[in-house]
Amino acid sequence: MSAQSEVHPHDAVDIIRAKRDGQAVPEPALRWMIEHYTKGYVSDAQMSAFAMAVLLNGMSRDEIRVMTDAMIASGERMEFSSLGKPTVDKHSTGGVGDKITLPLAPLVAAFGVAVPQLSGRGLGHTGGTLDKLESIPGWRAALSNDEMLAQLRDVGAVICAAGSGLAPADKKLYALRDVTGTVEAIPLIASSIMSKKIAEGTDALVLDVKFGSGAFMQDIDRARELARTMVALGTDSGVSTTALLTDMNTPLGLAIGNANEVRESVEVLAGGGPADVVELTLALAREMLALAGQPDADVEAALADGRAMDAWRAMIVAQDGDPDAALPTPRETHVVTAERAGIVQRVDALPFGVGAWRLGAGRARAVDPVIHAAGIDLHVKPGDRVTAGQPLFTLSADDEKRFGRALEAVAGAWEIADSAVDVLPLVRERITA
Amino acid sequence: MSAQSEVHPHDAVDIIRAKRDGQAVPEPALRWMIEHYTKGYVSDAQMSAFAMAVLLNGMSRDEIRVMTDAMIASGERMEFSSLGKPTVDKHSTGGVGDKITLPLAPLVAAFGVAVPQLSGRGLGHTGGTLDKLESIPGWRAALSNDEMLAQLRDVGAVICAAGSGLAPADKKLYALRDVTGTVEAIPLIASSIMSKKIAEGTDALVLDVKFGSGAFMQDIDRARELARTMVALGTDSGVSTTALLTDMNTPLGLAIGNANEVRESVEVLAGGGPADVVELTLALAREMLALAGQPDADVEAALADGRAMDAWRAMIVAQDGDPDAALPTPRETHVVTAERAGIVQRVDALPFGVGAWRLGAGRARAVDPVIHAAGIDLHVKPGDRVTAGQPLFTLSADDEKRFGRALEAVAGAWEIADSAVDVLPLVRERITA
Repeated sequence: MSAQSEVHPHDAVDIIRAKRDGQAVPEPALRWMIEHYTKGYVSDAQMSAFAMAVLLNGMSRDEIRVMTDAMIASGERMEFSSLGKPTVDKHSTGGVGDKITLPLAPLVAAFGVAVPQLSGRGLGHTGGTLDKLESIPGWRAALSNDEMLAQLRDVGAVICAAGSGLAPADKKLYALRDVTGTVEAIPLIASSIMSKKIAEGTDALVLDVKFGSGAFMQDIDRARELARTMVALGTDSGVSTTALLTDMNTPLGLAIGNANEVRESVEVLAGGGPADVVELTLALAREMLALAGQPDADVEAALADGRAMDAWRAMIVAQDGDPDAALPTPRETHVVTAERAGIVQRVDALPFGVGAWRLGAGRARAVDPVIHAAGIDLHVKPGDRVTAGQPLFTLSADDEKRFGRALEAVAGAWEIADSAVDVLPLVRERITA
Repeated sequence: MSAQSEVHPHDAVDIIRAKRDGQAVPEPALRWMIEHYTKGYVSDAQMSAFAMAVLLNGMSRDEIRVMTDAMIASGERMEFSSLGKPTVDKHSTGGVGDKITLPLAPLVAAFGVAVPQLSGRGLGHTGGTLDKLESIPGWRAALSNDEMLAQLRDVGAVICAAGSGLAPADKKLYALRDVTGTVEAIPLIASSIMSKKIAEGTDALVLDVKFGSGAFMQDIDRARELARTMVALGTDSGVSTTALLTDMNTPLGLAIGNANEVRESVEVLAGGGPADVVELTLALAREMLALAGQPDADVEAALADGRAMDAWRAMIVAQDGDPDAALPTPRETHVVTAERAGIVQRVDALPFGVGAWRLGAGRARAVDPVIHAAGIDLHVKPGDRVTAGQPLFTLSADDEKRFGRALEAVAGAWEIADSAVDVLPLVRERITA
């Protein structure tokens, strides 16, 4: 085929039309489309029309597998088989106060499993794991492939920045979807997440798919559909995959921010911490270890006896962090107290996420810095009984001017009343192949 | 509003999302989208996602009106009220052998009505009215606004090139739709056609909406939907609009090309010509004159007594053409004869249109020239009885090398058998407000 015939715009038009008319796109055509989009021969306009057609008409399981594989093929693929131990990764679709990766990776690594956790930074109200860890003096997110491999061998757990070489097609497509109203397509979300995770070379993957007000998918049915799609996709691609559907209507734990989330994670590793953070950490650790061949691993014991904490300290030290250094503290704080006695009925995740973001814990643009000591610390959770005047939560910022807009964000986001509250289970469903 | 907030990409995203989710886009938002797309602040990628959402989710009658009005507002608008006579225009959605504009415009002008017929050039298998007229030595398509106005006053009929100032938003959007699989959306087709026609400043409009193998809309139900959409849109925009649904399964008339179509048109103006071309010319003329306040005009008489021919000659002369000059003749011809005796069952429009195109009558790219003497002349139509060896059609080209691919195009596109043929009426339905 000549270069010119390879890039004729009407090849792309035929593919767009097929999807528009509800047909499945044949494997070679779909691979051609992704490859030529990555190279720039298929235009953004063509890909966005295709993405909209996918959003409205869907994709078959096989099309999603092909699309994901084509995105993986657009870049490099990591390879950990030389480690001689199983690799297991976790991915969360993102939520408010979701620091689970921090205690989870060292906990699982304590069982001799490699956890290559490539993570990102936050944008908008959802925090980023790397931003949280950068609260720790000296800690660095960027590792070379050799450093990562050595750390997986010696420590077992690595949380670091994903290199730009993984699934470049996904990076380009994600930026396009963001400005064309095509983010919400489940086949595109699934292939975006899974292309990066599969390119990372993990043997197995546990997905924490959130639903509720603070989650990307507010509706549990859509979250279930996404979870099932990703589990099928992982399975079809040779990566053992399990998903938990977890409730993100209420912030996870008590800390929302960066340094305070690290503090809370260390409490969990020390055998304490909020019950929901402990529960989810243990549930995900069990799933990861089951996929790694240790279905009966006693994960509670590893938290209780300090093995997980030892792995944490080794992981932080390996990336030049000081696990004993003091974390940044806020310059200004503002405490909000209960106006009446009663039972806390709800604490809504999304407004508290937005509030912490406005305090400086998150960023509006990818180039903005985050304020590590900024955020919100809850003192109560739904179901807790409070007296009038009791502290409900504390805002932290480097400038008290930030409190006004943060308080606007959380206005009406909690409620105290006399009725008892039925707190639903955090882990709602488990989805396997 | 600051310049920056005017161009925030997420304003466009909100509009795309509304259409994606099946909601109507409010008038100010839709106007904003078209205006900022024309200016380049809304990207091609955003507009193509929007166009795909429109194609799959539709638009309300009111949205189509607003979209059309916004496209008109993107450019200049012509004004013929100073003429002191009614203006009526005709638009055909395009077909094979469709030269109706040529006899129609002078026929209607013969009744004292102004016919400002802004036309285009052909692309693909559908010919362009300007390409046909350019077969006439000396004739020029480009007129200034003043020339056009003077000719409408003095002659009544003008067929000329549309200036680039009319509905530039439509030009940009049409080019985008062509490469993004979003041509077929009825709201977008309707607003594209009607924005140009309304910007032309006509008082009334008659639409010839084709269906069948040689038409853009193959299916009569889709053609009817398009016709109804455009009639409603014209009415909503203050332009009296009527549509005829006409059959384009068979080429119109006997000539398919450029010079040969002019020749056939002149035959009609001289009181002869193929029955279907005469029938459609008269039907459209009656509709145009009815909208211009002459419902009882005797259009047959104007063809028979030479008034229409006089108007034709004046129209050609006014644009520097010589109505008596010889038209170009082909260098090479190739006659296809009947292999057997019988009755012609069908002559399929699309393959004959493609055949004429391959002979050089049409162009593949907008910059290509056309060969005025190239094309196909049919000698029979469905229902005609033929003997074995009787000529069926003649191919014309400037190079005999062209015949092979043209014959490939028409292979199987006609059929001779013994059964009688039920020829359906050419004008199938009439659609009014």
